[in-house]
Amino acid sequence: MNESQVSPKVRGREATRAKLLDAAGEVFAEVGLGEASVERICERAGFTRGAFYSNFASKDEMFIELATLVARERVDAVRSRIDEIAIDCDATDVTVIIRALDVFGDDRASAMLMSEITIHAMRDADFAAAYSVQIDAVTAEVVQLIDEIVEAKGLRLKLPADDAARIIVGVWSDSSVRAAIANLEPEQLAAQRTRELSQIVDLLIVR
Amino acid sequence: MNESQVSPKVRGREATRAKLLDAAGEVFAEVGLGEASVERICERAGFTRGAFYSNFASKDEMFIELATLVARERVDAVRSRIDEIAIDCDATDVTVIIRALDVFGDDRASAMLMSEITIHAMRDADFAAAYSVQIDAVTAEVVQLIDEIVEAKGLRLKLPADDAARIIVGVWSDSSVRAAIANLEPEQLAAQRTRELSQIVDLLIVR
Repeated sequence: MNESQVSPKVRGREATRAKLLDAAGEVFAEVGLGEASVERICERAGFTRGAFYSNFASKDEMFIELATLVARERVDAVRSRIDEIAIDCDATDVTVIIRALDVFGDDRASAMLMSEITIHAMRDADFAAAYSVQIDAVTAEVVQLIDEIVEAKGLRLKLPADDAARIIVGVWSDSSVRAAIANLEPEQLAAQRTRELSQIVDLLIVR
Repeated sequence: MNESQVSPKVRGREATRAKLLDAAGEVFAEVGLGEASVERICERAGFTRGAFYSNFASKDEMFIELATLVARERVDAVRSRIDEIAIDCDATDVTVIIRALDVFGDDRASAMLMSEITIHAMRDADFAAAYSVQIDAVTAEVVQLIDEIVEAKGLRLKLPADDAARIIVGVWSDSSVRAAIANLEPEQLAAQRTRELSQIVDLLIVR
């Protein structure tokens, strides 16, 4: 379905949904899931509670959708960066992977949101189950991305791609969280993360 | 000062403080920092608000003390495990490090508390500053522990000890958090963590 076939009503509905999700992302990151009331999210987005409940059954449902969205945006960003780098023939091994992962600039709000998601998943089994389904799908894509890079560049990894993916994503998240706590400037943050990602990717590649 | 020199009054005060900290650890893990009121902590511990405020200036001050306590208990546990293993002459390289780190059994509440601490530090610069001072001291001890193991067993690492320490602690935390989200049984948790720690330590050691 191309854009001209979408009715103005559907487009309006999607825009409302997107604005509510944006506002929720900001409010969750600022005050946490517990303090982020539906009222507060609606106020930030400039909508009524009615608009909220015609889009989401509950705050939890919205939170799961937001969690999935954040994870998916990250994977999409890495994928399009890989397509870009593929054109650059000089890029080799470690450089390729680092540049592919280094897409997220100053990601303070996103690091806070991911931490909120993690802690809510530890505390609430229903949320954890719904979230795990989404995350497994995203993880499978990351593993596939790593397989593609490894094959395209003729590399060999010391661990299976799923273990390598878990370790790389772990280092990436940990680096973002520490940068947010230390309140690093964007350039410092980027330098630290590039250094830490280079180290781990270097350890993972067979020389 | 040995125990006989401590007055009953001081001992009573320390016991109250310890009980308040234990209760706070449970309540923070269960409901998060935002929902964990001083009233709720006192009720769990069986004390009055007066007892709380004669021990802590604020909930935040208590939270920092608890964060330091948890980090220090972990380091102490690793240290005493290393002393134990040092007696066992058959233990070599990877095994030594894994067994030293594998001291924490089913650590669900502790993983939740550490996540609460992390997110509060991202959100509050004063808390982050106070917490960083404590964490730097603990990190220095972990680095020293790694140096000791490496020297005692005649190993060589591919990275400086502080980078190795950061990566190992990162994998350890990430593993605990995923285990808590997946609600693993203690034996599954231990098996998963041992596997993931072995992988990373193996990558770090020069063969």
